Amino acid sequence: MVVRRQLGEELDQLTERILFMGGLVESAVQKGLRAALERQPGLAQSVIGEIEPEINALELEIDRRALDLMALQQPMAVDLRFVAAALKISNDLERMGDLAVNIAEGTPRLLSQSHNLPAVDLPLMSRLSTQMLRSALDALVRRDSGLARQVLVSDDQVDTMRDEIFDELMRAMARTPERIEACVALMFLARNLERIADHATNIAEDVIFWVEGVDVRHHSAEAPGAAH
Amino acid sequence: MVVRRQLGEELDQLTERILFMGGLVESAVQKGLRAALERQPGLAQSVIGEIEPEINALELEIDRRALDLMALQQPMAVDLRFVAAALKISNDLERMGDLAVNIAEGTPRLLSQSHNLPAVDLPLMSRLSTQMLRSALDALVRRDSGLARQVLVSDDQVDTMRDEIFDELMRAMARTPERIEACVALMFLARNLERIADHATNIAEDVIFWVEGVDVRHHSAEAPGAAH
Repeated sequence: MVVRRQLGEELDQLTERILFMGGLVESAVQKGLRAALERQPGLAQSVIGEIEPEINALELEIDRRALDLMALQQPMAVDLRFVAAALKISNDLERMGDLAVNIAEGTPRLLSQSHNLPAVDLPLMSRLSTQMLRSALDALVRRDSGLARQVLVSDDQVDTMRDEIFDELMRAMARTPERIEACVALMFLARNLERIADHATNIAEDVIFWVEGVDVRHHSAEAPGAAH
Repeated sequence: MVVRRQLGEELDQLTERILFMGGLVESAVQKGLRAALERQPGLAQSVIGEIEPEINALELEIDRRALDLMALQQPMAVDLRFVAAALKISNDLERMGDLAVNIAEGTPRLLSQSHNLPAVDLPLMSRLSTQMLRSALDALVRRDSGLARQVLVSDDQVDTMRDEIFDELMRAMARTPERIEACVALMFLARNLERIADHATNIAEDVIFWVEGVDVRHHSAEAPGAAH
């Protein structure tokens, strides 16, 4: 039973590293958005130079742990599904880190030209998206596929929000062409936040697959939600 | 040695399904872009209603094969890395299918308002991106990490192209505000094509890791290439 206990411990460690990585991602997203909207280069530098490299290192560590675990412990059934989910989740979290960097760095040039940004509620969209990530990871820890399913519902809300923000910005550009650059920058911010929510949704789907052994990806006839 | 031979056959089948999925993705991207630029709803419908669902089904099939292979054959070392790579590659290919749908469906409303689209060479960007995918999958089949490394170089070219297209479109919007909607639509097309190139790059990195056992992700100090 030594091997079994060791497997359990290693699975717990893998979960713990995923949670830690998730916390860094959440921080990167929040700081990245503040860096962009408040035009704070110091905050952007913290996301780009500190948090994101740590996120990247964690992806490599988690993948290495998962592969070692597969090779040495040869987990079966639900444990094997968990390790496969860990490989996919590390990938999603890493992409979210990249998106936080895009948010932090891509916009200062554009936003700097506008002192009055159009009033669209990107901070709310950011809070909803990071809340989805937190719920997906909570669901992972508690093996709670019901909670994971709620994340899928929130994703639709974020998509609706993105559509409303896009329409508002498109109208603002038509009204005041001198604000075009700022509006385009805000559209890309909204798009990046929506993609962060998409990755949280992927994680929730992986949790459902792991817990229930049921693959919920691609079971609807709908095309992907994003229209842009 | 029956088990060994069976492992080899199953790995070959897994490779074959990945190649088949890659061919569908390439077709979806090319048709999706034509659907958008030539405003052909029939082509868009083929991407959304036919090709993308098939891509989604293949992701599930490949993941199922990979998990079964891990559970039943317990591959080691290079074979285990290949199966882990297959799980990640199926995910990248599926995302590329989503992006092709975004390209096909997201833009007709915007582009329809403009009969003279600004002259930016999105078809060239699309050819470069799908060529990267083809090279990454060739590298997988030939176990050729040198070829995979060339894909990483092409990704920088695509990023440069995206920057040039963005600048051109931003200038076009400032000159002729009535073309704002079309320009924004083209920016999102360029962004989606650039992301398709990013996914091809991810696949190339997975091939290098599989062949050489060396993880080339995140070894540069650079932030991610995309600025938007």
